Amino acid sequence: MSKLARWLSPVIGALAVAVTSLPSYAADTFNWKMVTTWPPNFPIFQTGVVRFAKDVETMSNGRIKIQVFAGGELVPPLQTFDAVSQGTIELGHGAAYYWAGKVPAAQFMSAVPFGMTAKGMNAWFYNGDGLKLWQEAYAPFNVVPFPGGNTGVQMGGWFNKKIESVQDLQGLKMRIPGLGGKVIAKAGGTPVLLAGGEIYTALERKTIDATEWVGPFHDERLGLYRAAQYYYYPGWHEPGTVLEVIVNKKAWDSLPPDLQKIVESAASSLNVTMYAEFEASNNKALRELKEKYKVNVLPFPPEVLKELRRLTKEVLTEESAKDPLFKKVYDSFTAFQADNDAWTTVSDDAYSEASKE
Amino acid sequence: MSKLARWLSPVIGALAVAVTSLPSYAADTFNWKMVTTWPPNFPIFQTGVVRFAKDVETMSNGRIKIQVFAGGELVPPLQTFDAVSQGTIELGHGAAYYWAGKVPAAQFMSAVPFGMTAKGMNAWFYNGDGLKLWQEAYAPFNVVPFPGGNTGVQMGGWFNKKIESVQDLQGLKMRIPGLGGKVIAKAGGTPVLLAGGEIYTALERKTIDATEWVGPFHDERLGLYRAAQYYYYPGWHEPGTVLEVIVNKKAWDSLPPDLQKIVESAASSLNVTMYAEFEASNNKALRELKEKYKVNVLPFPPEVLKELRRLTKEVLTEESAKDPLFKKVYDSFTAFQADNDAWTTVSDDAYSEASKE
Repeated sequence: MSKLARWLSPVIGALAVAVTSLPSYAADTFNWKMVTTWPPNFPIFQTGVVRFAKDVETMSNGRIKIQVFAGGELVPPLQTFDAVSQGTIELGHGAAYYWAGKVPAAQFMSAVPFGMTAKGMNAWFYNGDGLKLWQEAYAPFNVVPFPGGNTGVQMGGWFNKKIESVQDLQGLKMRIPGLGGKVIAKAGGTPVLLAGGEIYTALERKTIDATEWVGPFHDERLGLYRAAQYYYYPGWHEPGTVLEVIVNKKAWDSLPPDLQKIVESAASSLNVTMYAEFEASNNKALRELKEKYKVNVLPFPPEVLKELRRLTKEVLTEESAKDPLFKKVYDSFTAFQADNDAWTTVSDDAYSEASKE
Repeated sequence: MSKLARWLSPVIGALAVAVTSLPSYAADTFNWKMVTTWPPNFPIFQTGVVRFAKDVETMSNGRIKIQVFAGGELVPPLQTFDAVSQGTIELGHGAAYYWAGKVPAAQFMSAVPFGMTAKGMNAWFYNGDGLKLWQEAYAPFNVVPFPGGNTGVQMGGWFNKKIESVQDLQGLKMRIPGLGGKVIAKAGGTPVLLAGGEIYTALERKTIDATEWVGPFHDERLGLYRAAQYYYYPGWHEPGTVLEVIVNKKAWDSLPPDLQKIVESAASSLNVTMYAEFEASNNKALRELKEKYKVNVLPFPPEVLKELRRLTKEVLTEESAKDPLFKKVYDSFTAFQADNDAWTTVSDDAYSEASKE
């Protein structure tokens, strides 16, 4: 053995050990893009996605780098699902009801009128059939979904007249998308579709009579209290909208098990921390709206809610008749909700009543 | 250059590149132990901890290996905190109120009578002062805490007589630990401390008149429906008990940033998935208790709950006078809860009432 070889021998030995003890994929890095349905810097929504991307990068020690783009920065907001489906983009964040045109059943994975709140949704996803059905619904599109946030119960919306009976919904022009809009149409109103940026002006100029948006925090930021007098609760149409992290199937399959688990864990973590941020922000904003802006915060009359619930069942039954997967998911959702409602009655509901002054 | 050196040269070059492109700590592995306050295989609690350990190992690709021990397997359940504090054990899982003797303020980090439910607790932890105060409370013990699970609202307990008025609490011998026990004592009852394994026999032999345990799922497994006739709700004394992942400070500091984030993310993930499993399991078990075992599920009378709430304030005020940190945490908790209650009234509570038949 030459002198050099003798000198190198232990070094090579050590390097060989170090290298063989590392898994073969350790040096692979993934430079991924993530697009969302949210405006740039949209608080809680988009800022939460940025936190998710940073968490994944930190946990993977830079082996996954995620460049985050808000809606419109790379693809239009409502093309998020398509971009991830086609694989031009690896990751997306949005809400499943945006893809109702493609996957009607997806609406159950975000929000359905008179459906379950966050705690029931998570129980259905993680410990019922929810996530399995969601994966089934997205599989034909090569998209892998994870629950990745929850808005909590939303508000019923801003109205420029009082809603005192079912008759007051007749002729009401309200900005309300999706299934909620179908219910309003059945009640004799006119659902209007408007992007977030158009709502304030339409309401202020009385092009519309009412609008729903999110909850106190986001509604305050949009200044809706200056455009309409009455702020109604509860958000019967969106009782806890689930947000989603979606991954292109091929991109997902290309990850080794450690990185898959990192993405999954970061999504679960986002699921709980984003919901917490909504709650904390809405807590404060509701107080401000009442104290600072003297907003009239009013409950929908029970009679109105009862009628909206009845009409919701009609809408969901009609949609079920059109699409077998919708029906399959509706059946699972409804059965789970029945047990969840019974438990909530003796737990959260009874407790909440007991604990307040 | 010798022949051997020439042959080795590109190999060494490649190895050098591979090694320098990896962070210096990549080869470090951490063989950690984790002890818990739970019995072996205790469903949801202990099984969740095992899932956490597996997730951390998967995400770190084996760089953190965690050997999980149930209560008593390595150290007695209630010495979990001490073992982690001393650093003989790196990780623990339990509930903060078990350490009330050492850290009275810790009770706010698990459950206080008439306190916040899971959603409020998470909002206070992640987006209020909750987690900061928790870290402050554990810092003198070299323990780093993370929220790592939630039981949801518990049940009020099993009673062998009906509770129809405040007078029925007089002389009641009830297994109920912690602050709840202090409240029962103020109401004229006698709180009794019993480990989980002793409860059934004590109740069945009428050594005690009543007991609280967890929720429908765990209560059914313990067979409590065979030992007492009346099952009361809500669990005013434990409205959403937070479970904790605790890490020895020195062990925590020894982790590189990627592994720290992996542990933190796995804890947040456990926080949401364990709560979901409680909900899903309680949903089913409540139905079974009612349908299969014909259990009388009864609400505490409003008058009784009102009195327990009044007595809780007395207890918390007394405890505040004894310990400045308790007072500091109580003040933060109370202020946060006030806003959270107001928001819950127009969101979850109003929604829940509207959505049920």
